[in-house]
Amino acid sequence: MSATSSKSGFLLSFEGSEGCGKSTQIRLLQQHLESSGQSVVILREPGGTEIGEEIRHLLQHAKAGSAMTPESELLLFAASRAQIVREKVRPLLASGTFVILDRFLDSTTVYQGLARGLPLDAVAAINTFATGGTLPQLTVLLDLETDIAWQRIHATGRELDRMESQPREFYEKVRQGYLDLARAEPARIAIVDASGTPEAIHGEILNLVETHRHAV
Amino acid sequence: MSATSSKSGFLLSFEGSEGCGKSTQIRLLQQHLESSGQSVVILREPGGTEIGEEIRHLLQHAKAGSAMTPESELLLFAASRAQIVREKVRPLLASGTFVILDRFLDSTTVYQGLARGLPLDAVAAINTFATGGTLPQLTVLLDLETDIAWQRIHATGRELDRMESQPREFYEKVRQGYLDLARAEPARIAIVDASGTPEAIHGEILNLVETHRHAV
Repeated sequence: MSATSSKSGFLLSFEGSEGCGKSTQIRLLQQHLESSGQSVVILREPGGTEIGEEIRHLLQHAKAGSAMTPESELLLFAASRAQIVREKVRPLLASGTFVILDRFLDSTTVYQGLARGLPLDAVAAINTFATGGTLPQLTVLLDLETDIAWQRIHATGRELDRMESQPREFYEKVRQGYLDLARAEPARIAIVDASGTPEAIHGEILNLVETHRHAV
Repeated sequence: MSATSSKSGFLLSFEGSEGCGKSTQIRLLQQHLESSGQSVVILREPGGTEIGEEIRHLLQHAKAGSAMTPESELLLFAASRAQIVREKVRPLLASGTFVILDRFLDSTTVYQGLARGLPLDAVAAINTFATGGTLPQLTVLLDLETDIAWQRIHATGRELDRMESQPREFYEKVRQGYLDLARAEPARIAIVDASGTPEAIHGEILNLVETHRHAV
């Protein structure tokens, strides 16, 4: 699955807790790649397919008050993932597209698995089944000290969503969960310090992309 | 989880290929139990909960033509199951209800797993995650020779649904898949010859229920 030329498909996922600057970095990377003539598609789960959009609706509807179990929530995310991988990601990669995933399997492990206390071996088995072996060639983990992430989120002044309004301990759990994953899979997951300037972080990400693109 | 008095909750699932007489037997068992004062609830997946109904809609909608992947289909069934187990089955059992499931985890193993060629260890892991250990105390497998099932279905003259209109080889694969499961879990899954009269089969099922209800 490794790409060997700048025109080959490449699968990159971004991960990180709320406030880590993921959206900014995705936009900067997209602009850079497109300006060099690379076709780029950004996908975000759940959604991205007709079935995924219906699952997204179901998950959002459930958030409003019904008692969706954590197990059901995780399986719905996985169903959306199984669909997007086969319907979108694989054909896009085959046609040479640079695919950026705004969160992917690691979010499920951290948010639905670790943070909710679901059995991690089962979560791993479900992730493997859903992705069917289509893993990112590179996962950028934007790591930020919990205090800084917490301050950034609460400084915005806007209304916080369900994840953002979790207590500080939740942010810490998410951060440590991501760092543990990165240590377990260092060849795929790169930890990027997200406390610097957007430009500096962008530069570091470009270096990582170049290195991973030319790896065999 | 075993029941020790006729007023305790009990979880029974019915399985079998199309044409095996499942609906008739469920109705006869329900009538028998209710006439003896036992509260009975029949549940059928997907559905039975608000979330399950939405998943059912999604699965049926997809049948009409969109390209839902087998992996996504299996995960949606599992999401519905995770919800119904925790929202309905467990509270019903705790309140002393006799719960009859018209198909449960074994249908997923046979129809989505074996028949579609999905990896069985992953299917088993997903089933375990979805049920969270809430397994039927008894599963009645209504077993019928493929030729007889095939003739019964095609003798009805009505329009066949997606499962029913599968080729004969599919029926045979499903039958063998069920028999293999029953041999692997003889304490839970009882094979009942479905070629006899409805009354004779009903009698055999009553015996099985009595035996399993009083087992510790």
